[in-house]
Amino acid sequence: MITSTGNSRVRELVKLKKNSRDRDAQDVFVAEGPKMFREIPVSLLREAYATKSFLESADGRKALSAGIRIETVSDAVFQYMSDTRSPQGILAVVSQLHYEIPDLLGEGNASPDRKEAAGADHTPLIVVLENLQDPGNLGTIVRSAEAAGATGILLSKGSADIYNPKVTRSTMGSVFRVPFVYTDHLKEELEALKERGVRLYAAHLKGSRDMYAESYAGPGAFLIGNESRGLTDETAALAHQAVRIPMCGQVESLNAAIAASVLLYEARRQRQN
Amino acid sequence: MITSTGNSRVRELVKLKKNSRDRDAQDVFVAEGPKMFREIPVSLLREAYATKSFLESADGRKALSAGIRIETVSDAVFQYMSDTRSPQGILAVVSQLHYEIPDLLGEGNASPDRKEAAGADHTPLIVVLENLQDPGNLGTIVRSAEAAGATGILLSKGSADIYNPKVTRSTMGSVFRVPFVYTDHLKEELEALKERGVRLYAAHLKGSRDMYAESYAGPGAFLIGNESRGLTDETAALAHQAVRIPMCGQVESLNAAIAASVLLYEARRQRQN
Repeated sequence: MITSTGNSRVRELVKLKKNSRDRDAQDVFVAEGPKMFREIPVSLLREAYATKSFLESADGRKALSAGIRIETVSDAVFQYMSDTRSPQGILAVVSQLHYEIPDLLGEGNASPDRKEAAGADHTPLIVVLENLQDPGNLGTIVRSAEAAGATGILLSKGSADIYNPKVTRSTMGSVFRVPFVYTDHLKEELEALKERGVRLYAAHLKGSRDMYAESYAGPGAFLIGNESRGLTDETAALAHQAVRIPMCGQVESLNAAIAASVLLYEARRQRQN
Repeated sequence: MITSTGNSRVRELVKLKKNSRDRDAQDVFVAEGPKMFREIPVSLLREAYATKSFLESADGRKALSAGIRIETVSDAVFQYMSDTRSPQGILAVVSQLHYEIPDLLGEGNASPDRKEAAGADHTPLIVVLENLQDPGNLGTIVRSAEAAGATGILLSKGSADIYNPKVTRSTMGSVFRVPFVYTDHLKEELEALKERGVRLYAAHLKGSRDMYAESYAGPGAFLIGNESRGLTDETAALAHQAVRIPMCGQVESLNAAIAASVLLYEARRQRQN
């Protein structure tokens, strides 16, 4: 049992949570809580740390009886490692996921389970995030994307890090199942998607077309911009169509995760009908 | 200029931000940031505090030339009063808003501006929140509710406090425009809504009906439960219909603010067509 916050592995784990450079250098990230732990694909699990009371819970006993090695840490050390106010006693170090553009289109070999689960419709449905900053928003979008049947997420390098613990937590496990790619060359990647027949819809406050007047039945991608500045003009100009989410009252814009989800679910509605 | 964090009004304001009991006793809340400040109805403004640099900004000069009295505070004091990491130099004490059930139905005298802005369709569209806990979720729902043209929000007393600074900030000003009522008697209020012809739709993971198979054209209310436990059985049982948001992949549920917004926007879509 680890009982000291000075323990080298404890210190290493805290560094991995805080610092994206360390995560990338070691090609890992940290997943916290029983919900996340249950969703970790066995092949990605590298290390696990738990309190005694977690190990005695149903989840803990299941993991132990499956032969998963879990290091016990004292409650005080766990509190130190955790970044939530009421820690749930389980933390894991997990291998990062690596996808290519074809995966975003549902053409790669990634996550075949998900594709089966999503049903028959494999028409590409992509979320493109340009400089999205808020970790909670990013996590929520990943979760909504899986739920709405999106095939993948393309992010500009200026966006929040998907392996930030706040992001992974708010994905509720979807981070393990939705393919995603970070790019330094958003413009080029968007041009390439267009060449592959993907229609680009820019979510834009000044969009000339009501989102509900558009068809999303074919291969498509929704372009979502930064929380306060929206899409850059350069990126918006690449879209086939700028679409506007209708808004009543004096609302100037929607939360970015809400906007993405409302668009994704409209695509989902049209595709299921 | 106030230069000491020991100043009695500074201490009072910090208490108002932290403590709902103090807010309710004085019938006020605190609004922070230029966006919120611009949206405060003049009749509700009680006190304002700003840094010198805010007073020199366009917003600051406008407010001063309109004759609004703003107390100057030093940057250090403002940082102490603010709960954001990069404070924007303006904080106000604002009177609480008071609504009755008829306001939620669009029948009261509250916020006539909003009703005009919302266009011709005044068919009641209500969001009912049972023990919703997360301040960010609540704020986002208030914002989405205004955008989708909802007429009001009914909250169980166990829900987050709408005057919590984190909530008001994420409403982006909608808190001033969407009527809301907290109730200790959710069951009775829901029965009363039913008697007034409002159809209750429970957002429920086990809902027997796909949300897209239902019509929301008439007076309606969406019942949204707690983030982890959902609706209580007692409340869900009061609904005319339990509706299920379709979900692909292995997603067990959506974020509560996303679920509420997807439902509200489907009502909005049906009503505009």
